[in-house]
Amino acid sequence: MSNHTLLANMKIGKVINKGVSSMADPKVYNTVEMQDRVDQYISQFKEGYFSPLSMLARFTEEIGELAREVNHVYGEKPKKTSEDDNTIEDELGDLLFVTISFANSLNIDISEAFNRAMSKFETRDKDRWTRKEQTEVEKDEQN
Amino acid sequence: MSNHTLLANMKIGKVINKGVSSMADPKVYNTVEMQDRVDQYISQFKEGYFSPLSMLARFTEEIGELAREVNHVYGEKPKKTSEDDNTIEDELGDLLFVTISFANSLNIDISEAFNRAMSKFETRDKDRWTRKEQTEVEKDEQN
Amino acid sequence: MSNHTLLANMKIGKVINKGVSSMADPKVYNTVEMQDRVDQYISQFKEGYFSPLSMLARFTEEIGELAREVNHVYGEKPKKTSEDDNTIEDELGDLLFVTISFANSLNIDISEAFNRAMSKFETRDKDRWTRKEQTEVEKDEQN
Amino acid sequence: MSNHTLLANMKIGKVINKGVSSMADPKVYNTVEMQDRVDQYISQFKEGYFSPLSMLARFTEEIGELAREVNHVYGEKPKKTSEDDNTIEDELGDLLFVTISFANSLNIDISEAFNRAMSKFETRDKDRWTRKEQTEVEKDEQN
Repeated sequence: MSNHTLLANMKIGKVINKGVSSMADPKVYNTVEMQDRVDQYISQFKEGYFSPLSMLARFTEEIGELAREVNHVYGEKPKKTSEDDNTIEDELGDLLFVTISFANSLNIDISEAFNRAMSKFETRDKDRWTRKEQTEVEKDEQN
Repeated sequence: MSNHTLLANMKIGKVINKGVSSMADPKVYNTVEMQDRVDQYISQFKEGYFSPLSMLARFTEEIGELAREVNHVYGEKPKKTSEDDNTIEDELGDLLFVTISFANSLNIDISEAFNRAMSKFETRDKDRWTRKEQTEVEKDEQN
Repeated sequence: MSNHTLLANMKIGKVINKGVSSMADPKVYNTVEMQDRVDQYISQFKEGYFSPLSMLARFTEEIGELAREVNHVYGEKPKKTSEDDNTIEDELGDLLFVTISFANSLNIDISEAFNRAMSKFETRDKDRWTRKEQTEVEKDEQN
Repeated sequence: MSNHTLLANMKIGKVINKGVSSMADPKVYNTVEMQDRVDQYISQFKEGYFSPLSMLARFTEEIGELAREVNHVYGEKPKKTSEDDNTIEDELGDLLFVTISFANSLNIDISEAFNRAMSKFETRDKDRWTRKEQTEVEKDEQN
């Protein structure tokens, strides 16, 4: 199954789940809502946003936790029984929180940063990988 | 100036920029659009998504590049003149791309991961920091 | 106090400690002994050394733990009371273990890797920073 | 071939190389010599050692470079032709430099940190992995 299909299923799944109300929050966030929610959480506290170097250390800590989960599930390192039972989804969520906190603290717009990165990949790296033949693309889309 | 104010300015700036059409893409993305755009980019190529351990290595590489920028601007390490002239915004954009690629490859919904992380912080860590007095919150909101 | 002096004290402290036998192991290791001890530990187990990508994930995990300690002691992030009471020394020890494991698994000689890196810094980066005036160097050496 | 054998070859290779003098520096360093050489390099410069958070950022940058090399050689990410032609050995050497700089700046003894870490693994984690049967150990030692 191609990733297109996976993503399509994910979206269909979302709609179905909405129907049965089985998910806690099937809301689709936009980046302004995400940046706002993080800001509201952090603005409650006197400490406010970390300084950039402290934020970076936090980032490094979180990617370390992601590494532990990934190595546990897909690599060769079993977890000790005393270790937390987090999931890769949890760790990606934490990383999103840190990314958005970092962006907020430096007044960076997530949508703009995303668009700039994507535009760069779509132009600069368009020949870095092996393009599928047209027929393969069509087949993927039919799946 | 509080972060609330920064964020407010950012949003106002956005609106003004929309008015004068000075920005390349003032669009606000939602997470489905972001996951789709990444998937469309990656699905062109035969290689497709990296395996989880290779994706993690890519993640580590990108946070290393963020670290270099942050250390250059806010820390003590000057760049060599031969080094790229990227910005922290560029590096955060690259990290978003990797985060979303990772999520796509594992069929994780970004909005859901974000919401779960935020709900955890809003409940579990609600007393981890020093809460502002009510009057401070009000002052912030007036700014 | 200059770092020269710190290091001198460290070495004196070592000698004194040897005298009173107060330390568990005042031994000075060389790199062959370190690579051997790691190899003896790992060779007991059927799993043996991790593959390079899994080793890298382990590395990322360990630097994340170092980041947590550093942010706790020198940054802005307090530890949760439930978190381990490790020290920066512990985390640097763990990182040495991973570095040496990585080197062993790829048949890399630590002394040679160290010497090559130092030779590069001593030549390539000799003018990257501000050299002390000669008199300052002499003062440092008198301390 | 077991890792024992690899390590043995590495040591034999060292001796042979010494004989033909083909290596720039076949010296085996001990940790005091390593900490000294790093200190002598850094003490030439007015800037001296980085602060802990800046050192950590440097560490993160270096592990990012290691990640790029590992992903290039063992993972799925080809290098751009414009990228440096470093090796994993070079990157491990850089990481040793940063580890030792960090230790020096905090007055930490590398031999002691290593010994504490190893003692912990040798006791705490002695049953974390699958022990080889005695006969396997003997076979390894014969190789």
